[in-house]
Amino acid sequence: MIDPDVISRSNENALEHLKADYDALGEHLSRRRIDIEAIKAKVYDFGVAIPSWGVGTGGTRFARFPGGGEPRDIFDKMDDCGVIHQLTRGTPTVSLHIPWDRAPAGDLLSKAEEVGLGFDAMNSNTFQDQPDQNLSYKFGSLSHSDAATRAQAVEHNLSCIELGQSIGSKALTIWVGDGSNFPGQTNFAKQFERYLNSAKEIYAGLPADWRLLTEHKMYEPAFYSTVVQDWGSNYLIATELGEQAACLVDLGHHAPNVNIEMIVSRLIQFGKLGGFHFNDSKYGDDDLDSGSIDPYRLFLVFNELVDSENVEGFHPMHMLDQSHNVTDPIESLMSSATEVLRSYAQANLVDRNALSQAQDANDALTATNILKTAFRTDVEPILAMARLDQGGAIHPIAAYREAGYRQKVASERPEVSGAGGGIV
Amino acid sequence: MIDPDVISRSNENALEHLKADYDALGEHLSRRRIDIEAIKAKVYDFGVAIPSWGVGTGGTRFARFPGGGEPRDIFDKMDDCGVIHQLTRGTPTVSLHIPWDRAPAGDLLSKAEEVGLGFDAMNSNTFQDQPDQNLSYKFGSLSHSDAATRAQAVEHNLSCIELGQSIGSKALTIWVGDGSNFPGQTNFAKQFERYLNSAKEIYAGLPADWRLLTEHKMYEPAFYSTVVQDWGSNYLIATELGEQAACLVDLGHHAPNVNIEMIVSRLIQFGKLGGFHFNDSKYGDDDLDSGSIDPYRLFLVFNELVDSENVEGFHPMHMLDQSHNVTDPIESLMSSATEVLRSYAQANLVDRNALSQAQDANDALTATNILKTAFRTDVEPILAMARLDQGGAIHPIAAYREAGYRQKVASERPEVSGAGGGIV
Amino acid sequence: MIDPDVISRSNENALEHLKADYDALGEHLSRRRIDIEAIKAKVYDFGVAIPSWGVGTGGTRFARFPGGGEPRDIFDKMDDCGVIHQLTRGTPTVSLHIPWDRAPAGDLLSKAEEVGLGFDAMNSNTFQDQPDQNLSYKFGSLSHSDAATRAQAVEHNLSCIELGQSIGSKALTIWVGDGSNFPGQTNFAKQFERYLNSAKEIYAGLPADWRLLTEHKMYEPAFYSTVVQDWGSNYLIATELGEQAACLVDLGHHAPNVNIEMIVSRLIQFGKLGGFHFNDSKYGDDDLDSGSIDPYRLFLVFNELVDSENVEGFHPMHMLDQSHNVTDPIESLMSSATEVLRSYAQANLVDRNALSQAQDANDALTATNILKTAFRTDVEPILAMARLDQGGAIHPIAAYREAGYRQKVASERPEVSGAGGGIV
Amino acid sequence: MIDPDVISRSNENALEHLKADYDALGEHLSRRRIDIEAIKAKVYDFGVAIPSWGVGTGGTRFARFPGGGEPRDIFDKMDDCGVIHQLTRGTPTVSLHIPWDRAPAGDLLSKAEEVGLGFDAMNSNTFQDQPDQNLSYKFGSLSHSDAATRAQAVEHNLSCIELGQSIGSKALTIWVGDGSNFPGQTNFAKQFERYLNSAKEIYAGLPADWRLLTEHKMYEPAFYSTVVQDWGSNYLIATELGEQAACLVDLGHHAPNVNIEMIVSRLIQFGKLGGFHFNDSKYGDDDLDSGSIDPYRLFLVFNELVDSENVEGFHPMHMLDQSHNVTDPIESLMSSATEVLRSYAQANLVDRNALSQAQDANDALTATNILKTAFRTDVEPILAMARLDQGGAIHPIAAYREAGYRQKVASERPEVSGAGGGIV
Repeated sequence: MIDPDVISRSNENALEHLKADYDALGEHLSRRRIDIEAIKAKVYDFGVAIPSWGVGTGGTRFARFPGGGEPRDIFDKMDDCGVIHQLTRGTPTVSLHIPWDRAPAGDLLSKAEEVGLGFDAMNSNTFQDQPDQNLSYKFGSLSHSDAATRAQAVEHNLSCIELGQSIGSKALTIWVGDGSNFPGQTNFAKQFERYLNSAKEIYAGLPADWRLLTEHKMYEPAFYSTVVQDWGSNYLIATELGEQAACLVDLGHHAPNVNIEMIVSRLIQFGKLGGFHFNDSKYGDDDLDSGSIDPYRLFLVFNELVDSENVEGFHPMHMLDQSHNVTDPIESLMSSATEVLRSYAQANLVDRNALSQAQDANDALTATNILKTAFRTDVEPILAMARLDQGGAIHPIAAYREAGYRQKVASERPEVSGAGGGIV
Repeated sequence: MIDPDVISRSNENALEHLKADYDALGEHLSRRRIDIEAIKAKVYDFGVAIPSWGVGTGGTRFARFPGGGEPRDIFDKMDDCGVIHQLTRGTPTVSLHIPWDRAPAGDLLSKAEEVGLGFDAMNSNTFQDQPDQNLSYKFGSLSHSDAATRAQAVEHNLSCIELGQSIGSKALTIWVGDGSNFPGQTNFAKQFERYLNSAKEIYAGLPADWRLLTEHKMYEPAFYSTVVQDWGSNYLIATELGEQAACLVDLGHHAPNVNIEMIVSRLIQFGKLGGFHFNDSKYGDDDLDSGSIDPYRLFLVFNELVDSENVEGFHPMHMLDQSHNVTDPIESLMSSATEVLRSYAQANLVDRNALSQAQDANDALTATNILKTAFRTDVEPILAMARLDQGGAIHPIAAYREAGYRQKVASERPEVSGAGGGIV
Repeated sequence: MIDPDVISRSNENALEHLKADYDALGEHLSRRRIDIEAIKAKVYDFGVAIPSWGVGTGGTRFARFPGGGEPRDIFDKMDDCGVIHQLTRGTPTVSLHIPWDRAPAGDLLSKAEEVGLGFDAMNSNTFQDQPDQNLSYKFGSLSHSDAATRAQAVEHNLSCIELGQSIGSKALTIWVGDGSNFPGQTNFAKQFERYLNSAKEIYAGLPADWRLLTEHKMYEPAFYSTVVQDWGSNYLIATELGEQAACLVDLGHHAPNVNIEMIVSRLIQFGKLGGFHFNDSKYGDDDLDSGSIDPYRLFLVFNELVDSENVEGFHPMHMLDQSHNVTDPIESLMSSATEVLRSYAQANLVDRNALSQAQDANDALTATNILKTAFRTDVEPILAMARLDQGGAIHPIAAYREAGYRQKVASERPEVSGAGGGIV
Repeated sequence: MIDPDVISRSNENALEHLKADYDALGEHLSRRRIDIEAIKAKVYDFGVAIPSWGVGTGGTRFARFPGGGEPRDIFDKMDDCGVIHQLTRGTPTVSLHIPWDRAPAGDLLSKAEEVGLGFDAMNSNTFQDQPDQNLSYKFGSLSHSDAATRAQAVEHNLSCIELGQSIGSKALTIWVGDGSNFPGQTNFAKQFERYLNSAKEIYAGLPADWRLLTEHKMYEPAFYSTVVQDWGSNYLIATELGEQAACLVDLGHHAPNVNIEMIVSRLIQFGKLGGFHFNDSKYGDDDLDSGSIDPYRLFLVFNELVDSENVEGFHPMHMLDQSHNVTDPIESLMSSATEVLRSYAQANLVDRNALSQAQDANDALTATNILKTAFRTDVEPILAMARLDQGGAIHPIAAYREAGYRQKVASERPEVSGAGGGIV
């Protein structure tokens, strides 16, 4: 963890400017009849989970260029996640990926307590073969044509639930790469039927207080068809399984030009939005930092979420899912968590009564300008003050660099080679 | 109609070559254990509907360049449709668009008998304002924020059913342009709710032997969001409405790169595929001639349809829906109907037992080559012989040109100006 | 024009809040070592042209829903453009479209003086047929296979230059819809050769102090191929023609996912960026309001422009080019001009020295956060104060509505029918 | 290599049917006034290079699932390539990738003679770090901000030329992954300038009888910008470098919906088309088997190539570049080479005089049907007979399976683990 004195010193230098900015914003918002303290309080309560794999440097199929101090195991990863939360105060949980992060439950719980984190959803992996695995997932897992391979994949998911129960997780997220690379390689209907049957077996093993989140993705690693290719198929799955099943939306998993915020709305409306993988993308599943490419799109997603905050039973899970290929992953995750919180704060500035009136009157320009006004408000002072209030850093990246954390772990953790990727 | 002597003369010249090609293909297929006569018999039975608006020259928002002899009304259009069926023998029905084609039922029936056609699905129009219309659809129709406007749109659809009943149609197809051009212009959930409620009112007026087909489209004329934007939303609609409701798939209405044949499969699997609008596209809803851009995609769609031919209760409707901007519409429609029939014939050549075996064995290359072998078989002799057997033309376009039909109607029908588009 | 008293009253009510916001922003920027007055001065000097056709309601190929008070001719249009500039002080010129706006030069100049506007680039139209036209552009204009049709199109462009010279314009913008709807319809190389030869004839008639801007577009109205389909072809044209020729970039004319700001950079680097058509899009050439869909993209384009402001000889032209289908066009154009100015102001906040250092050090996160910091600064007070300083409105849309301009012209100008589109 | 007796036996069984099909096709073509023997002779002369890396199983960033008998080094790879050419007679050369394939020139030449192959273009690799490498390519290679890193990358390319000269290669192909993942990470203009300067240093070391081919790609591994992102930038490079430089087109490296055959035409017209990487794609750079997704697009590319066959100095290089993730790579490469030859043969069936006439007359339907008629002709008998005539297999995949080659090498070559990708 970072030495609190380093954070304090960093904050001291920045405090005066922050106060001035915060006060000015407070006055401005009060002119818009918005209470800045109320917005800050909402930010306090909002958290986004860190994926354990996100703290390692990601790669592409061409290469991976590791940085210094790559985490060696789940305990190193949790140390890194602890630093992220220490500085940002916005990432209270970590999401494990099995088998990468498999460890004794007691050890995981001890480490979690040490670094001040809890556990978010469990993530299973049937898109890779493991050294000790009997049957290969080359041609699929939950939807494989071979019953024994499907059974193996189901069993793996059940074991993820088992571990998750022992560490306090309350959800299982399933993403599979099953699909095909050639027209005709698979029979679409039979493959989907097999997926559904496998998923039902997993669902049958779900504890009563758990949720099962399934994730759709248009393509990659399969390049002609993917068995859970879009929200339509994902909705069918969640409906077939039952009340505890819902859809997970990864912002980078859609076709070009698709209106993602409308998909978010539809899934909320029909009771099947379970959670998010936040990231950004320009081309495909680029897994870029949240808000780095199209920050307005992220805001529009949060506009839907905030608009439905009071829908009964609607408690979506929030997680980052990114691949950090050219940055320090800790820095990217701190920055990305901040972008998610920023969108949430901005979405809370929307004048929803005025918006409803403009919508009913078909006054499109007024309606859209209400959103734009909220979006272009610079809420950084709110985010920074919320961090400060909770013991974090006004400038998390600066404080992190001042603390020399990366250099420290680079000296403690041996260098790793550059092969392979391994990021969802 | 075309003078039968012209067709006969045209066929006489082509007959010898056709026979040689047909015999050679028959021998080749027999080596693949396929009976050419059985395939031809299937082609006999397959028909695709012509949209009444397709026989007029289409346009874009920039311009429309009419050709000679543009049809002036539904009766001219039915004359043109009659010629298409006379020469191709594959387009036995016409699909009306209301109010463009509104006319006394008796007159429509008389004309249909005269030209040898029946009536396919009725198409309503609430995406344009009509001169005698009380309330504007500028901001939507079935999902408009104003109840009276929604009621007007519902009423229009009910009137389409009424006319359809009197001329023997058995389906209503609904496509609306409702959506928004700005983030915030509409509330997605409320707008969809309003659409559903309006659609339920129409459904309540549906005769017991009718089907209600709803059509999804990603964008255009709305450019930020569209209320029925994809098959996911369309499926929700069809499910909410009831058993007589199903989805209509237009091949040009999807996001870039989307796997359409998989959507077809999903809708069949869940009992909600109602019909097709065939066309081709390279960019958006280009409404190009069927099979002109990506003929293999059309084949892959038919591969799904043929694979499910024996699914109980699965009887999708087939219609062309194209905009002919630079060709003689009659020629394009004859050519396009032929492409649809070609894909259907090719899909009937797939060795489905071998395909299933290859799929179960994950022998991807063998599986895909089974499809490719069917696709690359030149079935033109089968299509031509099927036309000839039924009194049509071996070479429909050549016969049509020899008959001078376009010149004839150009002399009878006054020239029209070039403004406006008006093609779905 | 709007009664100045209305503007004054509107401003009076808003002045106190503006001053508070402006002062607070000034202090904040001074902490970032930025002089707010210097930024405001840059905003004073920046103008964006209004396209004459933009003040009419646009449409799609399906329908056009006109609003009240549609302009009847170029003089009505210039009245509307005058109001836009009166209130925003950011749109000092209007860009004419011939033949739609053809009128005696003296009348145009008188009207321009009356409403306080100048004339930007001339726009030719060879994508539609005019009533008095000998040869049709159905199959192309500058690249038509027929020499006489090409000559007619060349002649039209030369006449646009002639009129432009007499009213003080200094540029001709050429956009053609030439292309094809079917593979094989045209020979790509021959068609492009013909385009180049026609363009050379126009270029030969260009006055020494004029520029020739050619505009590329991926598709529409042609749906298989377009003769000037992308910046690569456009660059070839500009290079073949000579020094006075350069490329015009319309933000909505590219393939999905394309990095437009990089195209902007390439064209600047190779001396061939001539100007812009600003708008926004989600799917294709949607012609939505600038900054309404992806405001960060607009900022990134301006980041390139500001970064190259001191490149010798680089003086790009700026114009809006939008289709206002569901809003009052005057309101949309005021709002859009403001968005363009906003991006320009934000791009002037980028700390370019720090950016260069971060780039050289491959510190990607610092570099991108420098851009984000500039982008998320709410510069509305600067824009509003710049308007106020120059006699415009603090809140242009509010002032416009208070003035009742639309109601006034609606009572003066007869209603028009809803047919047709006609927006570039 | 495969035992010739196995091939003979395989051919014996298929010969009768082939002769019948070939004779029937010959008669059919003679009715279209095409000499089947002339087409077959053209097929004899056409070859496509195999990339050395293509015979290994490919993967994605998520996983690689190796098959049995993976080649261990370039000599194993050349054995596999030899088998492909032995059976198909259409792949006379192999293209090396350095450093993966670095070996003593003499050993390479001996092996090439043994397996009956020559060497196509050399491929450099500066998109990965090698164990013995001083400076990392994490932030770029030829365009890196650091001069020493650029020099290292230049040096590597020069060493590729050196090795290539000693084994008879006549071209260097450069593809780099340089770009950025964040707006602002790089300065577009400076980065491109650095690329150009590095490329000029390589070009300066090019032997007089060599060509330098540069390859553009829209994205991946960089996900915000790529330094050679499209044919426009690639054309600028080839022009800046000089006469021996030209562009390489990989069919999967373009934005969605882009008309690739038109890019091919433009590059031919301006003398800068150097070669191809053939493959197919549905979403991004999927590297699927040639012709497996959109065979008509492959045909349309060859339609351009055949149309320009007689352009002086136009001798493009042809290579497959695919990633075989779920098939036996040898089978996929045989099948894909056949698809390339198929498109070439079909493009030779186009009636170019009739096509020109239809184009000049703007008879779009006739023009496109001329292409479709060529495309739908099943030329498999020509391809098979050409293989047979030259000692190959009538059914290459069947013969390959009968020979048990995969089982043989699987027993000789040790199993490899599943990590990593490594396919261009």
